[in-house]
Amino acid sequence: MADSPNCDLQSLSPLQLFERVTEQGEKVRALKAGKAPKDEIDAAVRMLLSLKLSYKTTTGQDYQAGLPPKDLVLINNGTAKEEDEDLVDPWNVQTSNAKGVDYDKLIVRFGSSKIDTDLINRIERAIGQKPHHFLRRGIFFSHRDMDQVLDAYENKKPFYLYTGRGPSSQAMHVGHLIPFMFTKWLQEVFDVPLVIQLTDDEKYLWKDMTIEKAYEYAKENAKDIIACGFDINKTFIFSDLDYLGTSAGFYKNIVKVQKHVTFNQVKGIFGFTDSDCIGKISFPAIQAAPSFSSSFPQIFNGKENIQCLIPCAIDQDPYFRMTRDVAPRIGQPKPALLHSVFFPALQGAQTKMSASDPNSSIFLTDTPKQIKTKINKHAFSGGRDTIEEHRKYGGNCDVDVSFMYLTFFLEDDDRLEQLKQAYTSGELLTGELKKVLIETMQPLVAAHQERRKQVTDEIVKQFMTPRKLAFEF
Amino acid sequence: MADSPNCDLQSLSPLQLFERVTEQGEKVRALKAGKAPKDEIDAAVRMLLSLKLSYKTTTGQDYQAGLPPKDLVLINNGTAKEEDEDLVDPWNVQTSNAKGVDYDKLIVRFGSSKIDTDLINRIERAIGQKPHHFLRRGIFFSHRDMDQVLDAYENKKPFYLYTGRGPSSQAMHVGHLIPFMFTKWLQEVFDVPLVIQLTDDEKYLWKDMTIEKAYEYAKENAKDIIACGFDINKTFIFSDLDYLGTSAGFYKNIVKVQKHVTFNQVKGIFGFTDSDCIGKISFPAIQAAPSFSSSFPQIFNGKENIQCLIPCAIDQDPYFRMTRDVAPRIGQPKPALLHSVFFPALQGAQTKMSASDPNSSIFLTDTPKQIKTKINKHAFSGGRDTIEEHRKYGGNCDVDVSFMYLTFFLEDDDRLEQLKQAYTSGELLTGELKKVLIETMQPLVAAHQERRKQVTDEIVKQFMTPRKLAFEF
Repeated sequence: MADSPNCDLQSLSPLQLFERVTEQGEKVRALKAGKAPKDEIDAAVRMLLSLKLSYKTTTGQDYQAGLPPKDLVLINNGTAKEEDEDLVDPWNVQTSNAKGVDYDKLIVRFGSSKIDTDLINRIERAIGQKPHHFLRRGIFFSHRDMDQVLDAYENKKPFYLYTGRGPSSQAMHVGHLIPFMFTKWLQEVFDVPLVIQLTDDEKYLWKDMTIEKAYEYAKENAKDIIACGFDINKTFIFSDLDYLGTSAGFYKNIVKVQKHVTFNQVKGIFGFTDSDCIGKISFPAIQAAPSFSSSFPQIFNGKENIQCLIPCAIDQDPYFRMTRDVAPRIGQPKPALLHSVFFPALQGAQTKMSASDPNSSIFLTDTPKQIKTKINKHAFSGGRDTIEEHRKYGGNCDVDVSFMYLTFFLEDDDRLEQLKQAYTSGELLTGELKKVLIETMQPLVAAHQERRKQVTDEIVKQFMTPRKLAFEF
Repeated sequence: MADSPNCDLQSLSPLQLFERVTEQGEKVRALKAGKAPKDEIDAAVRMLLSLKLSYKTTTGQDYQAGLPPKDLVLINNGTAKEEDEDLVDPWNVQTSNAKGVDYDKLIVRFGSSKIDTDLINRIERAIGQKPHHFLRRGIFFSHRDMDQVLDAYENKKPFYLYTGRGPSSQAMHVGHLIPFMFTKWLQEVFDVPLVIQLTDDEKYLWKDMTIEKAYEYAKENAKDIIACGFDINKTFIFSDLDYLGTSAGFYKNIVKVQKHVTFNQVKGIFGFTDSDCIGKISFPAIQAAPSFSSSFPQIFNGKENIQCLIPCAIDQDPYFRMTRDVAPRIGQPKPALLHSVFFPALQGAQTKMSASDPNSSIFLTDTPKQIKTKINKHAFSGGRDTIEEHRKYGGNCDVDVSFMYLTFFLEDDDRLEQLKQAYTSGELLTGELKKVLIETMQPLVAAHQERRKQVTDEIVKQFMTPRKLAFEF
């Protein structure tokens, strides 16, 4: 496989253009300092001006030396930054709006595509069944190149699924299940291989944690993931700390990505600084590499060109924008993506749920009593202050966390619609809505705990052993 | 094994102190911006001033924001930079002096120790035989903690050897053999395990080269290394691209080092910039990790505390200064080092020999005729312009490349001394000295070629297979 070091200007990302302008500026300075012939200097200056123009056209901003473009969520594409802009990156989700992040704006800023009715209908035709309620209800709301995945699927070409988790603590909450529940459905309806990355190395690098502890969390989290019901014959779960030392293909892809991404780029994308450790700085390549099938020679028989589809929460998109930027330059297909919204904290949709605050969410280890207490005590209500007012004006489903949780976990569309109408009209009181949520979550969590109990260390070991899956490549 | 995130100020390197001052400065700014209570700001400012003082005491320089200390060869330890300073780092060796780099100055600047007569005598007592002529003649001239290695050896505690090579092209020259010839001798006299790293990933990252080509060069270079006569039962040779994907311990040590080194530090040590790819930035950890025995669980039975001794050319020292800085913070012993001088180019001692210029050196693939022509045509002479002048004033061995080569390759001390006296007195002419060199190098290279022919792909494979060696741990 040949890595092509060059590509034309039009295919360059803002960050690559920034690099080019910087390099050309240095070249001009060197020529002038070296008293090069005038026509040579002039040609270099013309090139510099042309690069600066390309940069401005692409980014809507003037080039500023030393300031790489933040092609991220922090800055609107070509429009001025607004005061109430949401902050979304892999480590932060902040919004001042009780309804949560403005996802339509996010799609524009990220440059992804909305999952619209046409796409949902096309998925329905392709799989011959009703799409998952996460799709129907806009919980998975954005995508990149899902059309191409469907093209491939309709032409009987293979693809595979890749998702992951950073195992930061033993306790997972119900929000952590969203991508896995959806991935399980995708695996079933498309019948494709699935790889799940546990980034224990990331957690070791970012947290005050030993390597041993990070790896232990990875194995514990694997149990919760397996309890979602993945097919052991079609699923490979791996810890980075483990798999990097057992795969002939993984490190090669990591180092290929690392060759094609500069510090300027990760600074722009992830906000790293000079004081960050070199492990953090190079980590994005490790999350990128599983997007390429050659990272799993045991599954894909060494084949390099299998299309990858990544279901994940939208905050992980920066990693995969970087990956898609690099892919063609190392001769690999760009991974496609399906993005989910964030799961709200019980206290309200302003922030992503946190595993470190036990009251911010329902944990997979909670007892029925704990679930009841948490929902009654902490679930932010969109209801009115008094029963009289509530009856008169009705509740607000847009900010009511109990209702939001039901959109995630209550599968019955008709029942959900009835609840919405009854709550909005004031017929249904906050306490009654919370009761429905409690009765939905208690059996769901209990069933998960029951399935998790069946997941022995031996089963975890099987899932985490590099091996051929039930597919021919 | 616990990684301790904190350590007191006295144990901090200049670069770590720089980090601390920077962080504290940011803290003070944040407190002021956040209008924190006055006593809190005052305490933070006092801490900042104290850190700046520690920085000045340690480095002899005032702290300057954004300018990490170059604790490297580029700046003298606490003295002013001189105009004729030599430049020595892993990618450059430059000096304006025909005698070559000033190694005594380098020892002071690097903060290493001179290999003096006492140490050479101690080695002789420990091993019960005459030390290698590379030691006797100052070719290995500098060390770090060699006393500790000898302490351990005398107390029957185990240690191991680690050296390496960046496989940048198929052709190796005789200068490349120096560390391997010396390492082979060390292995024999101390009877210890040896690991040899081939940094094919480094070459892929630095050069315009595919991964496949880099790995191919690694295997080709392994043949030349094996031809030096290493014991297959005591030696493990590995390519990074290969071994990283087969070792349970190597990646874990890499990520530990990566957690404890910041971009500021590698910027200071290796001169990386924001435009460098993240692969280069994180690579130093990959050269560091083999210094820890847990990178080779198959050899050391998972033991973590085996002392490592690294014979290498002095230009590789920055990697291991970084490693020694990190080691105690990840609970590992610091590797000891033995440093060699540079091997001069045929054209003179001002620069290190280059594998890319066929006339700059004698290659291991050269025919007897090529060797003769190269020496006669290109070897820089310290002789006089005319035979008459030479007879009258004598030649200068200090700058004569033929004589320098003989100090490397002519083992007979008496003969070398005779040649020196005869050349210095004018009795021996340049052509005659060159003839001695030709007659020394031709059989040496021919013998190497003969041994290399015996090195089959199967033998390379055996050397490069991770396995237990002939030692119990």
